[in-house]
Amino acid sequence: MASSIISHLLRSLVLLLAAALARSRSVETVQGEADRVTALPGQPPVKFRHYAGYVGVGSGKEKALFYWFFEAERRPDEKPLVLWLNGERKRRAGPGCSSVAYGEAQELGPFLVRSNGPNLTLNPFAWNKVANILFLEAPVGVGFSYTNRTSDLRELGDRITAKDSYSFLLSWFRRFPQFRSHDFYLAGESYAGHYVPQLAVEIYEGNRAERKKSFINLKGFMIGNAVINDATDQMGMVEYAWSHAIISDELHSAIRKHCGTFQEDGDRAAGPGCSPVLRAFLRAYSDIDIYSIYTPVCGYDPCTEDYVEKYFNREDVQIALHANVTRLSYQYSSCSEVIEKWNDSPATVLPILHKLMNAGLRIWVYSGDTDGRVPVTSTRYSIKEMRLKAKGGWRAWYYEEQVAGWFVEYEEGLTLATVRGAGHQVPVFAPDRSLALLSHFLHGRTLPTGRFSRS
Amino acid sequence: MASSIISHLLRSLVLLLAAALARSRSVETVQGEADRVTALPGQPPVKFRHYAGYVGVGSGKEKALFYWFFEAERRPDEKPLVLWLNGERKRRAGPGCSSVAYGEAQELGPFLVRSNGPNLTLNPFAWNKVANILFLEAPVGVGFSYTNRTSDLRELGDRITAKDSYSFLLSWFRRFPQFRSHDFYLAGESYAGHYVPQLAVEIYEGNRAERKKSFINLKGFMIGNAVINDATDQMGMVEYAWSHAIISDELHSAIRKHCGTFQEDGDRAAGPGCSPVLRAFLRAYSDIDIYSIYTPVCGYDPCTEDYVEKYFNREDVQIALHANVTRLSYQYSSCSEVIEKWNDSPATVLPILHKLMNAGLRIWVYSGDTDGRVPVTSTRYSIKEMRLKAKGGWRAWYYEEQVAGWFVEYEEGLTLATVRGAGHQVPVFAPDRSLALLSHFLHGRTLPTGRFSRS
Repeated sequence: MASSIISHLLRSLVLLLAAALARSRSVETVQGEADRVTALPGQPPVKFRHYAGYVGVGSGKEKALFYWFFEAERRPDEKPLVLWLNGERKRRAGPGCSSVAYGEAQELGPFLVRSNGPNLTLNPFAWNKVANILFLEAPVGVGFSYTNRTSDLRELGDRITAKDSYSFLLSWFRRFPQFRSHDFYLAGESYAGHYVPQLAVEIYEGNRAERKKSFINLKGFMIGNAVINDATDQMGMVEYAWSHAIISDELHSAIRKHCGTFQEDGDRAAGPGCSPVLRAFLRAYSDIDIYSIYTPVCGYDPCTEDYVEKYFNREDVQIALHANVTRLSYQYSSCSEVIEKWNDSPATVLPILHKLMNAGLRIWVYSGDTDGRVPVTSTRYSIKEMRLKAKGGWRAWYYEEQVAGWFVEYEEGLTLATVRGAGHQVPVFAPDRSLALLSHFLHGRTLPTGRFSRS
Repeated sequence: MASSIISHLLRSLVLLLAAALARSRSVETVQGEADRVTALPGQPPVKFRHYAGYVGVGSGKEKALFYWFFEAERRPDEKPLVLWLNGERKRRAGPGCSSVAYGEAQELGPFLVRSNGPNLTLNPFAWNKVANILFLEAPVGVGFSYTNRTSDLRELGDRITAKDSYSFLLSWFRRFPQFRSHDFYLAGESYAGHYVPQLAVEIYEGNRAERKKSFINLKGFMIGNAVINDATDQMGMVEYAWSHAIISDELHSAIRKHCGTFQEDGDRAAGPGCSPVLRAFLRAYSDIDIYSIYTPVCGYDPCTEDYVEKYFNREDVQIALHANVTRLSYQYSSCSEVIEKWNDSPATVLPILHKLMNAGLRIWVYSGDTDGRVPVTSTRYSIKEMRLKAKGGWRAWYYEEQVAGWFVEYEEGLTLATVRGAGHQVPVFAPDRSLALLSHFLHGRTLPTGRFSRS
């Protein structure tokens, strides 16, 4: 009798716990449904669903990271999930720019902001043709993401960005549990060459340490025109500028002489003559677009950034996106103007790449070859530092019967691919080929090596 | 009395001689008028005159060089005269291509052949906006130029090309004496990096040796993506291919190791391993256009060369141009298929450039910086070999508020200028900027160094 009462009580307790758990789940998933974006101004009619909103992170959830999530155009339940991260800050290729303002609205999202006109432009090469795409604005201080504790803005750096982004992901998967089992990939460009591998490490370590329910099914990542190894990144910039006829013979020699970091085999000490020649180096780019050396610069015309900022500062847009619910004291900006300090940024992420290759992740490093900021020479020097074993050699890959770029596969699981004639933001300059690149990456397929390949 | 008879006879003789001389002149100028092109098929209506025909050269005038001459669009009597020469042969950047098929019909002439359609396209940036332009097909065997002695085709080379072209010019000025007093310039691209300076030397030496009546008022020349110094030209190709991500790290190292000529300070001996790596090098370009590395290749579409060859093979076109009057046994071809041998081609023309600078000629060397065949790196290495004194440094130049390229002026009278984003045939890829370049060259004006310069 007593045992049956105890058994009954236990059973009741189990049911109560299960109900509580179910309710908490359902609160999360109800929140997911509440994040659905339904009346975005200027949006063309589409058949896929999209969601936007905040996820709280930090010990007391005092930080709020903003995301915008697009289900794949067709059969989202069968497609992988890709998290896209932007990195660059203007003129520094550092952190601080918004994945919504760049990735979504200018590069690879379905809704491009192309003018001051009332309508968004539907991107025929949106990445949600082949995957579910999640844009995250990180860290706090970037885009709509914010913190209630202003001191947080002085405590930013690579480490906290990775930790907060990982916390975000754990919560996001609770909100969208239907995507937890999907193959998951990270992608990003520029300074996301730091963010992406570092977040991948968090996930990898988290998967090993945490209980099974927080497992994230990470399969690999792709980084473009990525900052990955300071010394070779910088040396590559100088070689690129000379070989593309942007700097003089004399400046080229002077930088190699005075700035130790730029020397292939030299040590890293910069001599006293380094600063002036580096300033001269940056001046050489003052009147062209270092991010795309052959395209015209804006001149007096407002460039896309202006349209984008105008759009996301509209109150009706913010309401539709469930953004800026706390009425931030500053305007929405494509690149952060409130981040005060960046405390940690390792000189190289190559050891992380080694570690994650060994862990079996698929890693693709790509490069638009007309970018002067994180140029293809930098990426080549950096990958060379890894001393990997090439298989198949350096080959052209094709898109619509044209050479789309070149690539090399390494036995260790890394692929280095270039995109011919594309600048820093590859999807802007080569939207079709960038989608093809993503598709091959997601399927783990070798890029097409013949003009008439149909892979 | 006797003396008065003698005096009278003498006077008569002088008059007779003068009349004969006058008649011979008038025969030449009558020939000039006969060369007027009046009913060119597909030609749009224009206000300027143009002339085409043959000029005999060689000891017995057994060689016939074909020219096409365009008076400047406005006030030709006040404008300088420019002779344009093409050089390149496909895949060799050697001699043999036609200045009519390339320079006139595809690059800088007023009448472009752009399709198989019936009409020529009027070029809004034709070089006859600022100068009288003379296109010469040289040497014999190129384009419509021919020889009655087939052995001549085995006796071709740089020397005979320069001599024949000089003979052509002497006769041409007799046919068009009204242009003899004009400032005269040479211009050309690719292998014309040989032709142009060598012809300039002929003119320079001729001016000193010949009687005054054959004086040619040569003021300078301009050469683009020009073959000028084999060792550095070749080294530049390899550096270019690597820094533009076209060849692998391994191939880059192997070429530098096995092919002595590619080493900056090495001797010129090529090792036994050189041939295979050079073949691999050329294969790397097999599916892109080495002459313009970022543009799509034709694929199955016929390219401009086909339209051009079709047009100039039309009988009505040949009649209108006074071309092929002897019914050549072969078809008109953009690049010669009858030249059998090339007997002399010096490894460098840099000493000639030095000599002509010292003679006070204005020399501009320009480079479209997306050409892989005679790339900007080659030109920079070559000019560096000359050890000139720069004045003003490496600066951007501007066209319509955009950076059009970069340039440096040297105290010795040479200017090196690049054209940003332009391939081997600069006027094809940057017609507006190429015209601006010519105009500044002709006026001896420094290129505009500010975004809002109005020079």
